[in-house]
Amino acid sequence: MAGPVLLACDWGTTNLRAWTLDDVGRVAAEHDFALGVSKLAPGEAAQRFEAEVRPALQARDLPAILCGMVGSTIGWREAPYADCPAGLADLAGRLTKVAPAVRIVPGLRCEGIAGGPDVMRGEETQVLGWLAQNPERRTGRHVVCHPGTHAKWVLVEDGRIVRFVTAMTGELFAVLSHHSLLKSDAPADDDAAFDEGLAAAGEGDALAARLFTARARVVGGKAKAESTPSYLSGLLIGSEAASAPRLLLGEAPKQVVLLGDAALCTRYRRALVRRDVAVEVFDGEAAAIAGLFALGAPR
Amino acid sequence: MAGPVLLACDWGTTNLRAWTLDDVGRVAAEHDFALGVSKLAPGEAAQRFEAEVRPALQARDLPAILCGMVGSTIGWREAPYADCPAGLADLAGRLTKVAPAVRIVPGLRCEGIAGGPDVMRGEETQVLGWLAQNPERRTGRHVVCHPGTHAKWVLVEDGRIVRFVTAMTGELFAVLSHHSLLKSDAPADDDAAFDEGLAAAGEGDALAARLFTARARVVGGKAKAESTPSYLSGLLIGSEAASAPRLLLGEAPKQVVLLGDAALCTRYRRALVRRDVAVEVFDGEAAAIAGLFALGAPR
Repeated sequence: MAGPVLLACDWGTTNLRAWTLDDVGRVAAEHDFALGVSKLAPGEAAQRFEAEVRPALQARDLPAILCGMVGSTIGWREAPYADCPAGLADLAGRLTKVAPAVRIVPGLRCEGIAGGPDVMRGEETQVLGWLAQNPERRTGRHVVCHPGTHAKWVLVEDGRIVRFVTAMTGELFAVLSHHSLLKSDAPADDDAAFDEGLAAAGEGDALAARLFTARARVVGGKAKAESTPSYLSGLLIGSEAASAPRLLLGEAPKQVVLLGDAALCTRYRRALVRRDVAVEVFDGEAAAIAGLFALGAPR
Repeated sequence: MAGPVLLACDWGTTNLRAWTLDDVGRVAAEHDFALGVSKLAPGEAAQRFEAEVRPALQARDLPAILCGMVGSTIGWREAPYADCPAGLADLAGRLTKVAPAVRIVPGLRCEGIAGGPDVMRGEETQVLGWLAQNPERRTGRHVVCHPGTHAKWVLVEDGRIVRFVTAMTGELFAVLSHHSLLKSDAPADDDAAFDEGLAAAGEGDALAARLFTARARVVGGKAKAESTPSYLSGLLIGSEAASAPRLLLGEAPKQVVLLGDAALCTRYRRALVRRDVAVEVFDGEAAAIAGLFALGAPR
């Protein structure tokens, strides 16, 4: 095996994941850092990258490529958005150099559902990395869902991201679980309550009303309060699965590619299969590595 | 004018409003107390009612009637729910006596939208009080909306509440304004941004996705961050107005009676009129007083 040729980082709001990659994109070393850009002071990203990230990965002299919120105004430096449609070649031509051997992948922008834009930073690298891993997917039309705090529903056509829609499902779950009448410290691990929540989601309409069912089922003695987080998770994911892809496509999808965290993808799969959608699941981290390698490998 | 004959209280989660009423239901005196039941220790409601509320209203010897969360498990004592359909006579027959001259109005329960029950405490007194104030409404079918932290959409037929749906719109606004990516201290007083939010609400579907437009319009440079609370208010109220009454009726309503706080009713009217719904607005406090008088006046 050749030595590492690239330092690749997925540097988000709450976390930084870093890998060194060899000349065919295999991981040589990896390291996580609690250096999310939301915790960094202005100017701190550059300093800590050189002082902590490079040494920890023995990557002092490697070219580096970064994706995610590190390219936002609260990150290292703003990497201007690229507009959809965009594929790997489009992004490769628009990297922002922030230091002699450090480049940041641009975020993506497209027309949103209400006149303004929609935006992503980081997920584009995973989606395009998934295409790099799966050459047979580079033709035709694919609906990719990346679950998370801000879930992304992405329409891919012939190897380029043509449009996407963001849903704040994960953030809704977090704020409701911590700060609302539905708050609870219980784990969201009750499959029966999750399925009850999926059933209560309807067609993704009237969410504010459907949310109250999470309270009423406990007050009315139909369920234990400890099952509320699972029920809420099912209700929110079910509502998203029923409605967000329709905003993207104008109709319900027949097939969806789930790309992301395995546990979260399992929940989304359950919501989608219930709606007769054919689902494939792919690992988001492997896709991020493939995307960063495709965009950053020395040529 | 005769002297007061009844001490009437709307005692909710965050506040207690008290009035003494004469023998035809006119207000003789009124007083607000920061004694919401969420702040009371067990047993404290009875003690503070006698020590503070009665003396402040010079009502030591009057019969008293209370509605609202004071009848919940965290209040004075639980006043069991009455089941729909229910009118004034049904509630009058089910008051819970908690002290020799103190009675609590039962909350209402009906079948909810997801198999469990839906519940209210306090709004039933306003809706039935509105009927007491408006005898010509005691026949026929009326859709009443009571906006608030937990907004209620209530179907009234021939003087009885037959069904209702709760929407957590006000609570969603509060938790998102204080704890999410959309948080802001700015006032929600920008009518143009409110209308933008109404337009972005669609048919009340895909709320988690539509919420992200509140972020994207600012990130994309289309709007100032200070307009976010107004936009968010329009988006949430617009979403509720489009979808919650459909859950109640199976179709969109043609006419809606708004009953509640004047400023909030103005917002809901704007959302409903935009959807070609005919709207009448009535004062919630006057309706509460009329309902308490109808249920509690000595006979």
